[in-house]
Formats: sequence, structure tokens, C-alpha cells
Amino acid sequence: MKTIKVGLLGLGTVGGGTVDILQNTMPEIQRRLGQSIEIVIIAVRDLNRPRSVDTAGIALTDNTFDVVNHPEVDIVVELMGGTGLAKELLETAIKNGKHIVTANKALIAEHGNSLFALARENNVIVSYEAAVAGGIPVIKAMREGLAANKIEWVAGIINGTGNYILTEMKKPGADFAKVLKVAQELGYAEADPTFDVEGIDAAHKLTILASIAFGIELQFNKVYTEGISKVSADDIRFAQQLGYEIKHLGVASRAENGYSLRVHPTLVPKEVLIANVNGVMNAVMAKGNHVGPTMYYGPGAGAGPTASSVVADIIDIIRWKDQPKADQVPALGFAADQLESAPVVSIDEIECCYYIRCLVKDQKGVLSKVSAVFAESDISIENVHQEPSSEKADDAKLVLITNKVKESSINQALASLAELDAIDGDIMRIRIETLG
Amino acid sequence: MKTIKVGLLGLGTVGGGTVDILQNTMPEIQRRLGQSIEIVIIAVRDLNRPRSVDTAGIALTDNTFDVVNHPEVDIVVELMGGTGLAKELLETAIKNGKHIVTANKALIAEHGNSLFALARENNVIVSYEAAVAGGIPVIKAMREGLAANKIEWVAGIINGTGNYILTEMKKPGADFAKVLKVAQELGYAEADPTFDVEGIDAAHKLTILASIAFGIELQFNKVYTEGISKVSADDIRFAQQLGYEIKHLGVASRAENGYSLRVHPTLVPKEVLIANVNGVMNAVMAKGNHVGPTMYYGPGAGAGPTASSVVADIIDIIRWKDQPKADQVPALGFAADQLESAPVVSIDEIECCYYIRCLVKDQKGVLSKVSAVFAESDISIENVHQEPSSEKADDAKLVLITNKVKESSINQALASLAELDAIDGDIMRIRIETLG
Repeated sequence: MKTIKVGLLGLGTVGGGTVDILQNTMPEIQRRLGQSIEIVIIAVRDLNRPRSVDTAGIALTDNTFDVVNHPEVDIVVELMGGTGLAKELLETAIKNGKHIVTANKALIAEHGNSLFALARENNVIVSYEAAVAGGIPVIKAMREGLAANKIEWVAGIINGTGNYILTEMKKPGADFAKVLKVAQELGYAEADPTFDVEGIDAAHKLTILASIAFGIELQFNKVYTEGISKVSADDIRFAQQLGYEIKHLGVASRAENGYSLRVHPTLVPKEVLIANVNGVMNAVMAKGNHVGPTMYYGPGAGAGPTASSVVADIIDIIRWKDQPKADQVPALGFAADQLESAPVVSIDEIECCYYIRCLVKDQKGVLSKVSAVFAESDISIENVHQEPSSEKADDAKLVLITNKVKESSINQALASLAELDAIDGDIMRIRIETLG
Repeated sequence: MKTIKVGLLGLGTVGGGTVDILQNTMPEIQRRLGQSIEIVIIAVRDLNRPRSVDTAGIALTDNTFDVVNHPEVDIVVELMGGTGLAKELLETAIKNGKHIVTANKALIAEHGNSLFALARENNVIVSYEAAVAGGIPVIKAMREGLAANKIEWVAGIINGTGNYILTEMKKPGADFAKVLKVAQELGYAEADPTFDVEGIDAAHKLTILASIAFGIELQFNKVYTEGISKVSADDIRFAQQLGYEIKHLGVASRAENGYSLRVHPTLVPKEVLIANVNGVMNAVMAKGNHVGPTMYYGPGAGAGPTASSVVADIIDIIRWKDQPKADQVPALGFAADQLESAPVVSIDEIECCYYIRCLVKDQKGVLSKVSAVFAESDISIENVHQEPSSEKADDAKLVLITNKVKESSINQALASLAELDAIDGDIMRIRIETLG
């Protein structure tokens, strides 16, 4: 049986998971593939650290270039993270004719365009299934499974930490800070949680999903990104009372003159399946013009799930590597010379319904003044909920749901609203997506 | 640009959908594929019937053999259904060196083994994504996306008609007969609904899912099949009160000495995502040993969704057809000489928790007699619910949930139970799957 040789950059959580699969599930993989896969070298940070996986028979090195320059290695698997050294290493590997598998969403989102171009020049494949939604084969589903469709939009819960926090915040007495602390204790959130809770990680993944959905270049710096740190337990409770769940979604959709790419807290109607995806799980919806709405669900992180996608990519590369480039699935699902140049539009251009929450002074005529502000901007109020504030004796909590309006109009209305004497403090505004 | 020529067998719902995609979404497909696809001939039942799609430039014939013998056709797409003529036509096409795309689940489940063998001999590809769960790319996800895993089990809502009926039966006053009638009026159910409601259609699809999950030959005649016609509105209400939804699931799992393949109504805990899949939608869960549970959701039938999978298969074949057989994904995801021969076990061998509903005479000591029967068979009762019967004045409705036991044990207990004087009429028994 033929054996394909692999070199790993990194032996952390996902690296360990990859070694585990290739050691323990190889008989099943051989039944599928008719070939074998062997790890010949792994670059580690510290050669003396004890290992949780058996590395007998595998060369360990603390010089990462040993892997990308290794003469026997066919496929380099990058699991070290970061966009500096990792980029340099993969560029060297590509120039050396190695195929690449990476789980590095930041690297693909920020430098994928140039890496893919370099790979085309050198006739090698760069695969990245593990970079989006961990173990869910959503890149394959969208690039190949939905290939007969013009994709209308994609929307996903693509950060497990954020989804865990929003799920836990539904419990009585929970608030963002408390839940974040628990998430950190459980290892679901980093000591510095910015990357997850402020949506940067999700924006990396959304960048990739948008490119394979529409056939556009990767444009991470154009993604509008809003985190979940301002969502309150009140917002979650009000949303539920009104028939919604709050999810931190990445959304990519076609706009009038281009594409809209955004990550933000979102009210989703409870009857939409993705509103019921809880805890650390991920899910991506993609709507095609022929297939309609589809959804892909599973674990978005962790050793086993992420390594499952890494090894699936290795298997795909083994099947494809000796075929003519023209027959292969292009890196972004569309031929490189077919990528569209329509712009990513400003967040001001989007249209949706909005959830508005504010604190108002509990006095006569307040609702009429508030309503007048929206009426002036031609915005209808579809739903109103008011209750006494438990925190401030003379105030009331006011929640409104608007009709579908342009973001620029709602911003204008909220600016006027903020100037009313009756408004006490900040106004919360959350977008609503019906995902129909 | 290169053009691949396709011949269609059948121009019904899915045939029309396929023509629509290839006429109207071809620019997007060309951006992905770098090649074009042209339908050159379609076999129809009646040449004089008016068409819902534009067939200008396409030869129409009422001789199906014109398609499979057409010298220019590279790929034959079979959308006529049935297992007689369709089989003969595909065998001819394969011998003529044509690649095959089919949406025919019965044909693959019942004759796939011989068709795949013939295709191997003739070095052509047989693809069948549309045969399971319509527009959901679940065959691709399992055969390729989860290729790094040993699949532990698969469970799916794979018949939209059945799921529609069970969903509608949750509404007050609905019962099976009434809802079936509405489903027939809406076109969701056939005039003779046996195929859908008695689980035969689901059994065809489960046969295929089991084979690609475990790498076993197709064994349709070994699938245990139980329909939904005996599920009452009471069962659905009791299940919900106890924290479950009733779904008609196809389940394929590993058993002690083989595999278990079965289709039956199933209680699924509400917090499992698939319990929330409603209406005509389909969803398939697959659990891999590394990835854990994943789920694939979307429309399981209809022109657009089914044709979406048909055309995705055409695109895949175009990419693969000139590559060496050894590099291609095998028809069942595993090399033909690697298919396992472990047996499909009898339904008596499975182990699960059970929901039991019966009518008992409302008199002292009944519960104690019933409990004694279960205790004798070493079965624990985890949950009991009793309420007066609204239909029979002196009777009570008794619902029990058991612990996990062997099906043969529960059958023994239910036989003893049926002999008690206190039991009035039939006993309903529904399996419970936690899908953890």
C-alpha cells in the first residue's frame, strides 16, 4: 500500500488530535482511501515537554523550517497559528512543492489571496476545512455540494465561546461578566477573550464563507464587526418574550451594489432551527437559489473535531494531488480569474428590522414622544413592550421592534431619540434576521 | 470553453428542475467549473404534453434507449424512477461507457451493489447524492467530509411527508387520518401514501446511509421498518409532556456483532437539535468517533433541491471522470474489496429505553400489577404518567418510560402485560433514542 508522508507544524491541541487520528483510525481511513498516511516530522516549541500522544517513530524538531524543507514530506499541516512565521513557513513549503493543510482562519482570511496565488503558480493545493466551524465539513458542502446554486446568503454561529456565553445568559441571574468568568474557568474562553467576544474570530471565518459563497476575494478588513459584550440578560429575556433568541451571527449577503459582510448579535425567530443551536456548538446556514435554506451543524472547536477536518483535507489532497489543476476544485470554489470585484458595502446600506431597548422616564406622554421620533424617520413600530425598571425607581424599560428599514435611517432616528429628555442613558440596538 | 453533454431520462418534477438549473444558473456554474454543461436529449413519456420548461435546442424522444445509446452523451441522468426499466437502461448506459447520475433511492438501495460492480468493470462513475435527503449534500459530507472518522451511528429524518404529518399532529384536534388528508391535498403525500407513511421510502434511504457510514454492502431487505400510522395525537402530547418529540427516524448503528438498521417512530429529547426539525424538512445526524455529532439539514424533496444535488453530481463527475479509478471516491465511500461482511442484526438485539402507552381499568392495584410485570423482566420504570381516559369512562391512560433494555426483554414484558385483566386494548410501544 502506498504511503503519503506528512509533516506537522505544531503539536498543541489540534496537532495532538491529528496524531491521534492518524495513529488510531488509520485502518478505517485505509479502507476508504486505499493508501496510508504517515507523519514523518513534527515541529514543536519545546523538545523536552512531555507529550499527551505517542510520537514514537516520528522525528521531533524545534526548527519549524525542518518541516517545510523536509525532502520526504508531501503535505505540510500548519497548526501553529499566527500570521507571521506561519505565513513565511507556508510560502516556503509551497515553493518547495508541498501541499498545505491549515486550520489557521486568521492566516487564510488575511493572507489567503496571496497564498492561493502562490499555490497556483507552484501547482500545489491549499486546504482549510478546519479553519471554519471546526469539525463541520461546511467548506466542502458549500464549494462542492451546493455548486449548482447561486448562493443568496450565508449566516452562521461560528464562534463557540460566544454561543456558549449567550446560551448561559438565558439562565436566571446570569449576566455577561459572570458567564464569561465561568467560560474562562472551563477553558471555553481565553484569559484575554477579545478575539472571541468582540467577533474578530468570527469575522475571520465569515470572510472565508463569503468568498466561497459568492466567488469574491478574501476581504477581512471590510467585515463590519460587533461583539456581544454589550448584550444584557434583559435583552435576552425581552427577545425571548417577543419570540426570538439572540445569536452572535456572521452574515454574508448580496446587497444592491455588492455584498454585505458582517458579524453582530442578532435576534433570530425561535422557529428558525439555528436559533436552537446552543452551547459551544456551531452551525452555518447557506441559502442557494435552487436548494433553498440548508444548515450544517456540529462542534466548532476541540482536538477531535478540528483534526477530523484536517485529516479529511489530507485525504482529499491525496486524491487530487496528481490530477490536472483544471479538474481540481479551486481554492475558493470559483476559478481564480472568475472572482468578482463588486464591493463590500457599508453597514449603513443594509436593511433589516431592529430591536431597540432604552430606559425612559416613567411619565405621561413618553411613548408618544418616542413614537413621534420614529414616525418622523418613516419607521413603523411593529411591537412594543414596557415594564417598570427594577434598577431605577422612576424609570421604565422600553423595548421596540421596528419594521424593515435601512441602517442609516435607524441611526438617524436613534440619534434624535437620544436627544429626548425622556431617554435615560444608552440605547441598545440589535439587528433582526428572519433567515427565510 | 469545453462542454460536457448530458442526456436525461425523465422530464417530471426533478427533470424540469434540472433543465431549469442548467439553463438559468449556468453562468455561475461556469465560474466554478470552467466548463459548460449541455443537455442534448431527454426521454419523455408523452412527446405531445406541454412543458413547464424551455426545451428549445434539446432533442426529445419517447424511446428511453435513444438516451443511453446516444453517441454524444457523456453523462446519463436517470430521473424516471422505478427499479425495472430504469435498471435495464442504466446497465446499458454503463456498458456504453456513460457516467450515471440518479435520484432513484429504490434503485440504489435494491440494486446498487450490482450497478456499482458493473460501473467498476466499465470504469464509469455512478453518483446518487439526490437519492438521500434531496438537496442536502449528506452523501458528500459523510463519504468525504467525515472520511477521517469511524462513524458510530447515523440517524435521520429522511422522509418529508412523514415529518410533515407528525409536525401537524402536534396541533390541537389533529389526528393521523385528518392530517394525512391535508397532506394529500397539498401534494405532500401520494394518493396511496404507503411508501412514505409505512417507512419504505425512508428504509431505502437508510440502506444507503448505513452503507456509506460503515462500509457495508447495501442490504435493503434487512432493514426493520415500522411506519407512523399507529402514532396517535395522545402519543405526541404525552411525549411532549415528558420532554420529547416524536420523529420518524432512520437509524443505523453498530451493534455487538454487526449493525442495526431500522426505521421507526422515535421519541427524541427536545433539547437534541433534530427534535426541532419540523414540517417537510429533512435532517441527518452522523456521529464520528473524532468529530462527535454533526447534522445536515435542508429540503428533502422538490424540483429545485433535488435538482441541486443532481447537478452537483454532474459537476463532480466532470471533475473526476478522466482521473484514475484509484484516486476517485469509491461509490460507497469505501474500496469495494474493503466492504465488511458483519451481519445486520435482528431488531430483537437492540437496546434502548421505551415509551409504553396503554389503557388500564381505573381500579385499585392496577399500577402495582403493571409494575410487577416489568419488575419480573428486570425492567425499571423511569417515569409514569396516568390520566383519566376522555374516551372510556372507567379507563385511565397509562404512560411509562423504561430504562435501557433489550428489545427482546421488552417484548416479553409486553406479552405478559397484554394478558393482565386490567389492560384494555392494544399496547403502544415507541423506542427512545437520546442521540448523545
